[in-house]
Amino acid sequence: MPIITLTTDYGTRDPYVAALKGVLVTMAPSALVFDLSHEIAPQDLMEAAFFLRNTYPYYPKDTIHVAVVDPGVGTVRRAVALRANGHFFVGPDNGMFSLMLDGDAIDELVELNIPAFWRTPHPCDTFHGRDIFAPIAATLAQGIPLHQLGRPLDSLKPLYWALPIADPQGIRGWITHIDRFGNCISNIHQNLFLQHHQSRKPKCYVGSAIINGLHKTYGQVDSGEIVMLFGSHGFLEIAINEGRAAELLGIVKGTPLSLVFMEQKRYVPELEALGS
Amino acid sequence: MPIITLTTDYGTRDPYVAALKGVLVTMAPSALVFDLSHEIAPQDLMEAAFFLRNTYPYYPKDTIHVAVVDPGVGTVRRAVALRANGHFFVGPDNGMFSLMLDGDAIDELVELNIPAFWRTPHPCDTFHGRDIFAPIAATLAQGIPLHQLGRPLDSLKPLYWALPIADPQGIRGWITHIDRFGNCISNIHQNLFLQHHQSRKPKCYVGSAIINGLHKTYGQVDSGEIVMLFGSHGFLEIAINEGRAAELLGIVKGTPLSLVFMEQKRYVPELEALGS
Amino acid sequence: MPIITLTTDYGTRDPYVAALKGVLVTMAPSALVFDLSHEIAPQDLMEAAFFLRNTYPYYPKDTIHVAVVDPGVGTVRRAVALRANGHFFVGPDNGMFSLMLDGDAIDELVELNIPAFWRTPHPCDTFHGRDIFAPIAATLAQGIPLHQLGRPLDSLKPLYWALPIADPQGIRGWITHIDRFGNCISNIHQNLFLQHHQSRKPKCYVGSAIINGLHKTYGQVDSGEIVMLFGSHGFLEIAINEGRAAELLGIVKGTPLSLVFMEQKRYVPELEALGS
Repeated sequence: MPIITLTTDYGTRDPYVAALKGVLVTMAPSALVFDLSHEIAPQDLMEAAFFLRNTYPYYPKDTIHVAVVDPGVGTVRRAVALRANGHFFVGPDNGMFSLMLDGDAIDELVELNIPAFWRTPHPCDTFHGRDIFAPIAATLAQGIPLHQLGRPLDSLKPLYWALPIADPQGIRGWITHIDRFGNCISNIHQNLFLQHHQSRKPKCYVGSAIINGLHKTYGQVDSGEIVMLFGSHGFLEIAINEGRAAELLGIVKGTPLSLVFMEQKRYVPELEALGS
Repeated sequence: MPIITLTTDYGTRDPYVAALKGVLVTMAPSALVFDLSHEIAPQDLMEAAFFLRNTYPYYPKDTIHVAVVDPGVGTVRRAVALRANGHFFVGPDNGMFSLMLDGDAIDELVELNIPAFWRTPHPCDTFHGRDIFAPIAATLAQGIPLHQLGRPLDSLKPLYWALPIADPQGIRGWITHIDRFGNCISNIHQNLFLQHHQSRKPKCYVGSAIINGLHKTYGQVDSGEIVMLFGSHGFLEIAINEGRAAELLGIVKGTPLSLVFMEQKRYVPELEALGS
Repeated sequence: MPIITLTTDYGTRDPYVAALKGVLVTMAPSALVFDLSHEIAPQDLMEAAFFLRNTYPYYPKDTIHVAVVDPGVGTVRRAVALRANGHFFVGPDNGMFSLMLDGDAIDELVELNIPAFWRTPHPCDTFHGRDIFAPIAATLAQGIPLHQLGRPLDSLKPLYWALPIADPQGIRGWITHIDRFGNCISNIHQNLFLQHHQSRKPKCYVGSAIINGLHKTYGQVDSGEIVMLFGSHGFLEIAINEGRAAELLGIVKGTPLSLVFMEQKRYVPELEALGS
């Protein structure tokens, strides 16, 4: 059975998701439909890209991912479908897919410019999810090849992650996401860390906290203590065991974070305890 | 495979939806179950009716829609099942279905008065969703005809939409829904507009805004500008491109909205800019 | 088709649930997956146990229930799978399952100590849902017997509900849950009530309310009136017909509740009206 996933910023209180799913089940009754999230922050392309990058690889190859965070709906921004890393993606070409792929190769890319594949030749200018993206996903689920759904494009609209800055002394990044537990996720990936730390102990300055050293899981510190670790997505994360780090340490999305690598010879734990 | 959809005001933090779905999958294991929304505002019949009217037509014919917003659960209000526009509906007879159908013909209507079709002859007085409506939906999904499930009724409990008022000068309505993006949806349908505007330009007074002229999509105005358009549901909608109109313009559910048709001869754009 | 249900405190805005479901559909493509709730209050074992106890019995026998509320993820707390009351349960052994079963017999219980059944022999220390519990559920769905998945255990980590206190004069308990409608659910079960009331009329003191006598459903009192009844889960519940009891009566989770059985000879309704 073909699998279709949905990621939107529609929420579930409004009729938008339910209408879109009705179109899917009408056109592709044999497809398995999975709601990934409809709680992406409204019009937040970075949150959508971060979310997709950390979820789509867990689905089987050939899954069709519909992703609609679409501030430019009805304007000149293009509607696209593409294939990359063995998965299909359908949605607006507003940079979200560029961010999600982060340089990964695109195997096939088309602009969805053939009204015969839409729900209607006159799609609603404020709801392409229902009238273009869901019908295209259903068409892919029926086995129609991607290249037939529109004209080939060379590239997506480019958009790039702002990257942390690294030098021999440390890495400077910031918080990109606060999760439901109040954990604070940064844009510092463990690969960047591994390139630079040279076996030196990291010290982290973020919000009102100074954190010494890395742990592997929340419970390695006492309840209520601050812990720094690389999370399940591979990014440096600041948490409090059984507490909410964001509120308790005054951290929000965008808060800067500095990681300093401590020279062993200068390492004086007593001074650290004083916050110097 | 039969399709069953669910629309409730239960939320998903409490055990109610999960218990109802357990009854469905136990009694009708081959049915496809779709959650439309469980985030209808508690006991808000109008929101439920608006939601259903804008979602059920996208599902295949013969879909079974369970809709439970039920302030009178356990009292004398009737439990009903009906067929209209090729779809089945199951829920309390409290006016919600009258509002949803808005005058559409009902092909079949029964009161659910036969305990043999319920989960138990002694249904819980506070949870008919689990004990009556889910079992009836599962029974319909098994192919039992609607007329066997209860005694025939002539009509639903009537309930009517309060309608906007139109005269040659304009239309007066109000805001019926604020969506997740802060867009403000009114009760003025484009059909009513088309009957009255006589090619005159509409000017809209709502909250702290005066809006001149219609657009087709949000992005036709600059970021941060107010825009008035007919939304995907056919109703007049006030939005701000990449902003939240409700908060920024002081609009809530129930805020009145006046649409004035501008005589071309009197049309002085300069004065409008001053807000006169 | 095997059925898998999911109950977590992950929320749906973060990537955790979607990643976990991707693992499930990849490993057990024929399973039916039901989201019970992802809105359990973060790390609230009691809420999870109350939720599961009031939902899992409605699913078919042999359903596989994945339940992940896991403050000790990555520490020495064990990962377990068990069979009880004809259902399978998979999750952390932190007391949640003990609370849920509340003394019910366990037919089979294993510690999940065989990495060959996990997604990877090196599971992420902060995300056992994706790397251990989902793969184990998928393996059960494939028909592998429970006893092969780990080493047998004698018992779960014990955890007990704090129970109400009853004496001949009445019962003292407290509020354990506020639902989406503002209804206040206590820990006083109707079985305990039936043992002690001896046909005497109950009077309830909770928050700012004094409530006389039981009803069967909300609508038996006028709109805006307070009502006391046994809810669909069997526990004493305080509600306001078409209102929110929690906010209006100043009741929160943990608020004490006293039930006094009124001697008929002393029963003076006039004094009650004065609040004496």
